Amino acid sequence: MSNKIPYKTYLSEQEMPKHWLNLKAFMKEQHAPFLNPSTGAPCTAEDLEAVFCKECVSQELNATDREIEIPKEIRDFYQMFRPSPLVRAYFLERVLDTPAEIYYKFEGNNTSGSHKLNSAAAQAYYAKKQGLTSITTETGAGQWGTALAMAAAFFGLHLDVYMVKVSAQQKPHRREVIRTYGANVIPSPSDTTAAGRKILAEYPETGGSLGCAISEAVEKALTTPDCKYVLGSVLDHVLLHQSVIGLECKSALDKYGVYPDTVIGCMGGGSNFGGLVAPYMAEKLQGKNEIEFIGVEPASCPSMTRGRYAYDYCDSAKITPLAKMYTLGCQFMPSPEHSGGLRYHGMSPVLSKLYHDGFMRVEAVVQSKVFEAAVCFAKCKGILPAPESSHAIRVTIDEALKCKQRGEKKKILFGLTGTGYFDLASYKQYNDGTMTDTIPTEKDLMQGFQSIPELP
Amino acid sequence: MSNKIPYKTYLSEQEMPKHWLNLKAFMKEQHAPFLNPSTGAPCTAEDLEAVFCKECVSQELNATDREIEIPKEIRDFYQMFRPSPLVRAYFLERVLDTPAEIYYKFEGNNTSGSHKLNSAAAQAYYAKKQGLTSITTETGAGQWGTALAMAAAFFGLHLDVYMVKVSAQQKPHRREVIRTYGANVIPSPSDTTAAGRKILAEYPETGGSLGCAISEAVEKALTTPDCKYVLGSVLDHVLLHQSVIGLECKSALDKYGVYPDTVIGCMGGGSNFGGLVAPYMAEKLQGKNEIEFIGVEPASCPSMTRGRYAYDYCDSAKITPLAKMYTLGCQFMPSPEHSGGLRYHGMSPVLSKLYHDGFMRVEAVVQSKVFEAAVCFAKCKGILPAPESSHAIRVTIDEALKCKQRGEKKKILFGLTGTGYFDLASYKQYNDGTMTDTIPTEKDLMQGFQSIPELP
Repeated sequence: MSNKIPYKTYLSEQEMPKHWLNLKAFMKEQHAPFLNPSTGAPCTAEDLEAVFCKECVSQELNATDREIEIPKEIRDFYQMFRPSPLVRAYFLERVLDTPAEIYYKFEGNNTSGSHKLNSAAAQAYYAKKQGLTSITTETGAGQWGTALAMAAAFFGLHLDVYMVKVSAQQKPHRREVIRTYGANVIPSPSDTTAAGRKILAEYPETGGSLGCAISEAVEKALTTPDCKYVLGSVLDHVLLHQSVIGLECKSALDKYGVYPDTVIGCMGGGSNFGGLVAPYMAEKLQGKNEIEFIGVEPASCPSMTRGRYAYDYCDSAKITPLAKMYTLGCQFMPSPEHSGGLRYHGMSPVLSKLYHDGFMRVEAVVQSKVFEAAVCFAKCKGILPAPESSHAIRVTIDEALKCKQRGEKKKILFGLTGTGYFDLASYKQYNDGTMTDTIPTEKDLMQGFQSIPELP
Repeated sequence: MSNKIPYKTYLSEQEMPKHWLNLKAFMKEQHAPFLNPSTGAPCTAEDLEAVFCKECVSQELNATDREIEIPKEIRDFYQMFRPSPLVRAYFLERVLDTPAEIYYKFEGNNTSGSHKLNSAAAQAYYAKKQGLTSITTETGAGQWGTALAMAAAFFGLHLDVYMVKVSAQQKPHRREVIRTYGANVIPSPSDTTAAGRKILAEYPETGGSLGCAISEAVEKALTTPDCKYVLGSVLDHVLLHQSVIGLECKSALDKYGVYPDTVIGCMGGGSNFGGLVAPYMAEKLQGKNEIEFIGVEPASCPSMTRGRYAYDYCDSAKITPLAKMYTLGCQFMPSPEHSGGLRYHGMSPVLSKLYHDGFMRVEAVVQSKVFEAAVCFAKCKGILPAPESSHAIRVTIDEALKCKQRGEKKKILFGLTGTGYFDLASYKQYNDGTMTDTIPTEKDLMQGFQSIPELP
């Protein structure tokens, strides 16, 4: 093993980013504005501040600087789990016998088990700074709920987490971590909100969905004093906070003069992908590189590869603003697959725009192939990856094997967003050989598309 | 927050230890030799090689050098998860409002969730090098089984893990991680061995014990060609491998001129404690410091504080060699408490000797106080600690609060051996307020002592 480039690179604390990178400021054309669903007009700051913290709204609507300072308090919090390691995957290269160089940024070394803590820290801090006493959110797979519970405990905020009911049932341990950090977990749909009660009346047996949990959390924020709603993905300010991933990555790779040819990340709402690619995509938008960016989504919930680019609601009860994005329809019901974190009907408006404008491509992969890649990776790299992250591993392996066929020495960078310690029920299905792959039919898609609103 | 000393310190890969530290070589008086139970004579290399790998036996019996080289292949494996961070616990100091400086070495950032991988890597490598095709072991809480499964997968060895039945039932997810790495998990007692069948016949409803699982794994190794048994704690060579913890720790602290006044670690079989203290204890044995070393054990299984210093078997079926150690009796049955990793009747002979000779002290703590400390730590430090590790956190907090009372600026170092991601059932009990504390009565102890053999 030639060790010119170390196995792992940790930046020093002095080298950690002091600014986030605002990818939007590099885009010649911005994504279409959020619309107020009742007026059809672009959302004002006032509209959004009814739901979100002021500082986050400001970052969402007004940020034009290329760099935005990370407050000291957030940088202090980041030191609990950052810098994260940039790893040269020597052992994976050896197993694949590929001439490609494989690198990954590992964001799973914290109790939330994922990159979600990067934005949770920021949003909880801003909520506290604004003088709020409590925040609400939803969680599907549970990483986001855990991350926000950790941040809320640290900054002294009460937190209500609406957890998709089927997740709360399938992952009692994930639920318990959130409780241990002092947050209140409410399986969704619940009778604590009008949105929840309506869905329960219509579908008493439903296991819930991310869209429905969002509806409940937003309603809770709207109806509780000194309480705002916090979202873990999709929105521009979340991608902004996640840019710390890509910035650390680039600082580490720059030390060795390594510039990637291909950057690969999984996509649910886009927070990890947007953060990972930020500095490299900013350079591509300036014509400074020709990196191939590959987003990977589950074939069971293919919002980019089979969705429509249209205005749609961010939640299933249609109470949030409308976003122009790739969507399967806000009431699309993905099969109860295992990558809970990628089971969202829409996609970040920033990434939707970049995809639409040809700056990246997206691949959809089936679950059994994802777990095959996950187990290969676990055995040669030690880390048991999250099913979500394993989507990126799958395509990385495929690309590295293409390099072998073609004799290409590409430099591939991928995002290892988290660990799979709370996904063992899915691993068991794979180990037992009982895992199935689901791909929505055209009819399934058409049914979802019916929930995309027609705008005047 | 004064950041002269960084929040986290990672050594570079060049700075990682290339040698283990052999604590025994610094002891003026060695612990009493292992005895062959059938002859009563000191164990020969041949006796032990029937069960263990040759290289491990050599390290166990013959190692007199102060430093022993870590083979390159093991150092390569260590790079997957090492160096581990040495953390200044600024936020914990702030919460406790203590003048003490608190440092900890975090060994949980790997899929086994603990320090166990340090010795698993070494022992699997030596087994492979010796030409073996398979290895066996037992696991209680599951960290050791997971660690060895990871190492066996990496080096291409078959592995049978005898997992204490009650653990396999209570921790199906832990079991699944081991399976994912390709190992075979057998709930113990089982009908695959004579020792297991005997216990099943006598106690058909038993949930098993670590001592019983050891008996089965050793029997399996003795009766299978090209197969040896591998132990995750207690023995001298395991402590040797774990010295990498303390060596990294000291290298990092030396950079800042920090020399601890107190070093604290939890104790089950002693592998973590022995590894953590190694370089500092070596200096104490040379009269170079007056560090206070504090081992922490559960009040439910108090082998050091209430056990006898005597020759005893390492397993409950009495088929292993006899070791001179602090013991509650090889058939002592601890209550089914939650710190599975600390539920062992005996203790490392090296540490037993050091304790007996007055070089360290030991405290026993009850479970509810341990979880109180764990939750405090989780909230201010982000990391959800393993119940085992939380024993050290409990005593660290107590010591830091004493410093506050007395106005002492002590430097306290403790070992954070692992994470609690697979211990959420215990956290749930604590969160629900249903956790109970168990302390064995004198009668319980007397019953255990009856299983200590009388030597001729």
